[in-house]
Amino acid sequence: MIKVVIIGSGNVAQHLIKALSASEEIDLVQAFARTPSHLSHLLPKEKITSDYQKITEADLYIISVSDNAIAEVSENLPFEGRLVVHTSGSSDISILADKNRKGVFYPLQTFSKNKEIDFTPIPMCLEAANENDFQLLEQVAKTLSKKVFAISSEQRRSLHVSAVFVCNFVNHLYQIGNQICEENNIPFEVLHPLIQETAEKIKELSPTEAQTGPALRNDTKTIEKHLDFLENENYKKIYELLTQSIQNVKKL
Amino acid sequence: MIKVVIIGSGNVAQHLIKALSASEEIDLVQAFARTPSHLSHLLPKEKITSDYQKITEADLYIISVSDNAIAEVSENLPFEGRLVVHTSGSSDISILADKNRKGVFYPLQTFSKNKEIDFTPIPMCLEAANENDFQLLEQVAKTLSKKVFAISSEQRRSLHVSAVFVCNFVNHLYQIGNQICEENNIPFEVLHPLIQETAEKIKELSPTEAQTGPALRNDTKTIEKHLDFLENENYKKIYELLTQSIQNVKKL
Repeated sequence: MIKVVIIGSGNVAQHLIKALSASEEIDLVQAFARTPSHLSHLLPKEKITSDYQKITEADLYIISVSDNAIAEVSENLPFEGRLVVHTSGSSDISILADKNRKGVFYPLQTFSKNKEIDFTPIPMCLEAANENDFQLLEQVAKTLSKKVFAISSEQRRSLHVSAVFVCNFVNHLYQIGNQICEENNIPFEVLHPLIQETAEKIKELSPTEAQTGPALRNDTKTIEKHLDFLENENYKKIYELLTQSIQNVKKL
Repeated sequence: MIKVVIIGSGNVAQHLIKALSASEEIDLVQAFARTPSHLSHLLPKEKITSDYQKITEADLYIISVSDNAIAEVSENLPFEGRLVVHTSGSSDISILADKNRKGVFYPLQTFSKNKEIDFTPIPMCLEAANENDFQLLEQVAKTLSKKVFAISSEQRRSLHVSAVFVCNFVNHLYQIGNQICEENNIPFEVLHPLIQETAEKIKELSPTEAQTGPALRNDTKTIEKHLDFLENENYKKIYELLTQSIQNVKKL
């Protein structure tokens, strides 16, 4: 059994605790949380600590805290020469303190507190400073997921930017669509099949092949009607900028 | 059997021809296309005409042409008092010529030529000037889909604007994500599970509850890093505007 300690109590930490606790090849020996009560629904009391000095021995320490806190937390660990990784898409491997062996264990997914997550299809993006450590990370990742990738810090940086576009920004467009529906007494559910199909489509077609709509058709009449319809100045700006951007791509 | 004539040969027309041909309660008696060869892979020659004068008698005429052409096509029909509908999300019912009974038969979905469509989950948004005609549209729609809605021209206008946000603009963000991946030698497939989960999530959570990412967390360090990373001025602008917009919603 591979002994693992999780450090952190946020969304990703909690989903990892659940998934690793369920794995038969992993012994989740402990979790560290500044506020132990955040994890009390997931682990027995004796497995949670808020004291750095009481962190137990393990094969792997997974730091899953906010990006700004990774450096400090890794510096606070009261031991040396062990394998310490973070789970951040946007932080370099070098942000970890030099006294331990470094790595990255980045599950590329959007984690919400109130939504169960199946790790099986989640791409696990791994990086380690040496080959043995990479193999251990791979072993752990494979107990969770079928999709394991070696992704360098540089690649991860671009992956994370892409992820912001295709997840965070996309969800914000859902939010705008939802608001327009609400304001006009239309159940947002009417748009669900369209949203699902738009996401499904790019498994078979490239996004460029899948593009449809008034911007692509250069249907200026419809575009004008839509801009007239939108009263929110912010949404108008987004509509104009994305319409223009679709037409730029088309010209290429 | 309800006799139907389809007028048009574009994406939506072709998907409707396929779906209605397969329905046991519908007799697709004819299709009209300016260029009959566009439909020759779907229908026998004798069922296709390019001559308005040869359009046959039917219970329902579905005009599925580009928005700009609907008015003219409906004016060209050489008969009166029959039920004529269009399939456009962005056109008013009143755009149809007055000489026939008017309606709208709008399947709310994104149709691509090279992607098969199952109509069953597609919301069919119907409108008709009189109750009998609405019932006939409902009967036809129900042979295709489980989800049939009465949607007025005014509601449809707002629905179509929402659809542009959650489908066309979302797909464009996929395109940007894809391009960033390509430029950095990362297979776009790594992002597929994230894209699927982002779309799935809003079935259980509202988009506001589902929002995650650096903009929402106000993680200025990451936002700056991402803006530095983006060389394309257009993508930078989109990143800034959507980040700002997410933060505006958060403040409400």
